[in-house]
Amino acid sequence: MTEETGVGVAVSRTAVIDLLGALAYGELSAFDRLAEDARTAPTLDGRAALAAMAAAEMGHFRLLEEHLAGLDAPVADAMLPFVPVLDEYHRLTAPHNWLESLVKAYVGDGLAADFYREVAGILPEPTSSLVRQVLADTGHSAFAEREVAAAIAHSRQTRDRLALWGRRLLGEAITQAQHAVAERDELAEFFVRGFGDLAGISVLFKKLQSRHGKRMGALGLS
Amino acid sequence: MTEETGVGVAVSRTAVIDLLGALAYGELSAFDRLAEDARTAPTLDGRAALAAMAAAEMGHFRLLEEHLAGLDAPVADAMLPFVPVLDEYHRLTAPHNWLESLVKAYVGDGLAADFYREVAGILPEPTSSLVRQVLADTGHSAFAEREVAAAIAHSRQTRDRLALWGRRLLGEAITQAQHAVAERDELAEFFVRGFGDLAGISVLFKKLQSRHGKRMGALGLS
Repeated sequence: MTEETGVGVAVSRTAVIDLLGALAYGELSAFDRLAEDARTAPTLDGRAALAAMAAAEMGHFRLLEEHLAGLDAPVADAMLPFVPVLDEYHRLTAPHNWLESLVKAYVGDGLAADFYREVAGILPEPTSSLVRQVLADTGHSAFAEREVAAAIAHSRQTRDRLALWGRRLLGEAITQAQHAVAERDELAEFFVRGFGDLAGISVLFKKLQSRHGKRMGALGLS
Repeated sequence: MTEETGVGVAVSRTAVIDLLGALAYGELSAFDRLAEDARTAPTLDGRAALAAMAAAEMGHFRLLEEHLAGLDAPVADAMLPFVPVLDEYHRLTAPHNWLESLVKAYVGDGLAADFYREVAGILPEPTSSLVRQVLADTGHSAFAEREVAAAIAHSRQTRDRLALWGRRLLGEAITQAQHAVAERDELAEFFVRGFGDLAGISVLFKKLQSRHGKRMGALGLS
């Protein structure tokens, strides 16, 4: 079963379920990490802010779960293939302190949003709109920007460390995303056709890198 | 500053802030525990269900935060006096496995709801309505009932252990609630006047115990 996208790319049901399943487990595992990191917050306000970010991920999760149910695909089944790579990403990028947690939440949410926004552009409706809705900013980025700005204002060392941390997050995310796609044939085919060819995918990665750079700039870490 | 309740009890601003602060930290600490317990779930579905329960607590938290802001009381300040007793409750009732986590979530939510529903009856508007809204069932109890029923169907030992666990949860909750009230003069005064006298408070505890018993029955643990 395939559907035509707005740009005329055929998308198999399997590829759509894979994309939504990966996004759903992204939300569930982000919930998990944010909830754990909330405990290291230096203040009750910080703890509540991170807990609220975690809760927002579950709001997105529910939308994906409902949409997948409409495709007769239980969310747990759809997520399963992506558990190893996402767990590995989180294992390799476990924050060592509160500031690393904040930067990871900010950068990780942003990267996932950039990536899925590009994917939404080559997906058919109603999946495309769903993906855009799931990625809508949860309004918590201002909190991270404020906290990080305050922390690096008087410490060049903190700034440099967090800048390196941001670069590592990008690298690990791209590595694990490539692993995930490599193991799913229909997903790989969808990307290659959707973005034109391998050169198109390389353009996509350059875009993601450039937006990541701007995001690090907004945190004062470029 | 005091307000008259529907039943003619004067409530000081301090007592209202205390009640909402305690409820808010109850939600934040429940979020924290549920998120941690979600990790011990035997399935991805169970993990998502507990994570969704945790996220619902943060929805309630936000309502309380907004209402407290309207009283010029930052939520972090309002919660602070109740951090020790609630943390102590959670420390003393750390679940040892998935089923204990589920029973704790179910029983803890239910007890808090019963208690605050009684309190709502002696609070002035709009606080009374807010409290009722915060306590609205998040619709996750059916999940706990199903999982526990399946687990105890073939094991009397599991049933007996979980029944004892439920009794311990009630005991620790009442002990810690008494500690919390004992340290807040205006809160203690509000309770004594709101429920008539010390005998009225003893009637309240009997009610809570009886409803707890019914709840344990619904889980198959009476």
